[in-house]
Amino acid sequence: MDRLKQQIRFIIEIDKLKGIVRQNYLADGSRKEDDAEHSWHLALMCAILAEYANEKIDVLKTMKMLLIHDLVEIDAGDTYAYDTTGASESKRERELAAAERIFKLLPEDQAKEYRALWDEFEENASPEAKFAATLDRLQPFLLNSASNGKSRKEHDVSFSQVLRRNEVTPDGSKILWDFQYEMMKEEVRKGNLRK
Amino acid sequence: MDRLKQQIRFIIEIDKLKGIVRQNYLADGSRKEDDAEHSWHLALMCAILAEYANEKIDVLKTMKMLLIHDLVEIDAGDTYAYDTTGASESKRERELAAAERIFKLLPEDQAKEYRALWDEFEENASPEAKFAATLDRLQPFLLNSASNGKSRKEHDVSFSQVLRRNEVTPDGSKILWDFQYEMMKEEVRKGNLRK
Repeated sequence: MDRLKQQIRFIIEIDKLKGIVRQNYLADGSRKEDDAEHSWHLALMCAILAEYANEKIDVLKTMKMLLIHDLVEIDAGDTYAYDTTGASESKRERELAAAERIFKLLPEDQAKEYRALWDEFEENASPEAKFAATLDRLQPFLLNSASNGKSRKEHDVSFSQVLRRNEVTPDGSKILWDFQYEMMKEEVRKGNLRK
Repeated sequence: MDRLKQQIRFIIEIDKLKGIVRQNYLADGSRKEDDAEHSWHLALMCAILAEYANEKIDVLKTMKMLLIHDLVEIDAGDTYAYDTTGASESKRERELAAAERIFKLLPEDQAKEYRALWDEFEENASPEAKFAATLDRLQPFLLNSASNGKSRKEHDVSFSQVLRRNEVTPDGSKILWDFQYEMMKEEVRKGNLRK
């Protein structure tokens, strides 16, 4: 029963992910997205797009990874992909401290499992982590494009910045990267992304 | 490429789930939860609590089911569990029409797979569907309790109403139901749930 109580405490604690607001807007541009919504979208995208991974992936493992990949932001906050405030310098340290606290709320075996999944995602070393990283970049790109580049325009983001941010995208899926790259050029033509 | 375009169109369409607001509040009581946040929470709860299912479940299948179980509400809207407006009478019809439209945005094989998962959830006939239903009731109960019964108080919900709403909960997990039942009695003692 102590085990279940620990698990329930973790489940209530991670409710805070719903309060972590990201920089990108929903597809309809009405408001910014939060981390829980983003994680839901990524997990379902993984189920639907897994066939495009460069290497065969364990879909369940990748979905778990995506569901927990942003939990550290409960303590560390969201650091914008095109950050210019210096927040990205201390990001790693803040997120490591958060991982120490948050995953340890779980019973020991699960704390180890989920911490290992997060470490694997951060190290971007396995086929699952690489595919997760591809989706983590494709999803906000799709929402940004659907909202006519709303957050890109707010932050004056350029084609070359998006290109740099997506250096790892082809490592997870060449096919999804090719698709995104074509869309990027189209976004420039439409005036939704600075050249 | 047409296949991928169909999948991407579906992925952008389902972004609307983030705009479907439920009746229960976040754990901190700050605002009501939306369906995408709820679905994220359920999928991760499934990964963490699967060991308590009455029968052995396919975790990946159950997580997919939970990620898509509320997509029909994009068209049909959220119907409150303790509805008194009559909305629940037309719920089934509205949701069937929504399922027809939304899942068919996917390529045929995936449209069939996800529609079948939704049907299975609705029919509550498999171990996976039963466990999904258990979590779908436990999660708002936990958030309601964390927020001192905020939405229960708004809707004047009683112990016997919660009991009736949870008739199917033990079918998915006797252990989680026993845990929830103890919490329900505690909530009455605390004055967060009407006797």
